[in-house]
Amino acid sequence: MVRHIVLLRWTETATEQQKQDAEKAFHSLPEKVSQIQKLVCGADLALTPGAHDFAAVLDFASADDWRAYQAHEAHKAMIAEYLAPILAERSVIQFDV
Amino acid sequence: MVRHIVLLRWTETATEQQKQDAEKAFHSLPEKVSQIQKLVCGADLALTPGAHDFAAVLDFASADDWRAYQAHEAHKAMIAEYLAPILAERSVIQFDV
Repeated sequence: MVRHIVLLRWTETATEQQKQDAEKAFHSLPEKVSQIQKLVCGADLALTPGAHDFAAVLDFASADDWRAYQAHEAHKAMIAEYLAPILAERSVIQFDV
Repeated sequence: MVRHIVLLRWTETATEQQKQDAEKAFHSLPEKVSQIQKLVCGADLALTPGAHDFAAVLDFASADDWRAYQAHEAHKAMIAEYLAPILAERSVIQFDV
């Protein structure tokens, strides 16, 4: 299984509504992108200073399925509409689990 | 459940042996720190440029259990011996799953 993790830091001007809409957009992805086997995501709990603001963890059966997700229109549209306008920083990785 | 994710970027001078030892050190934590309910970790698959080098995902029953982990001697010792010498960058978050 390939696990894709993205940690996001929002801009200072991002509104609560925009942040919630981004979370909803992530949750809507599995019904649009069949290659997503599992998706969990959520906002930081503010337990430690300097943490990122949001995390999404997506599991795929293979690297090819991850590539299909990367190229998928629903994924690109979600980034353009919900993430790009409020994104300050992005940390990402893919690893085997 | 509280999920703790840490994404690490190693220094240029980190050796393969040091990176493998760091991974082994992560895997040894659950037997030393009872609050860890689950731990998965691994090296980046090099599917995309700019990704971090290593990810660890740890699950805890509560924020208090996460705090106990943060304060645990085994956790501190692992950081000092295996991570600090080869660590260039660290992205972290805790969120509810």
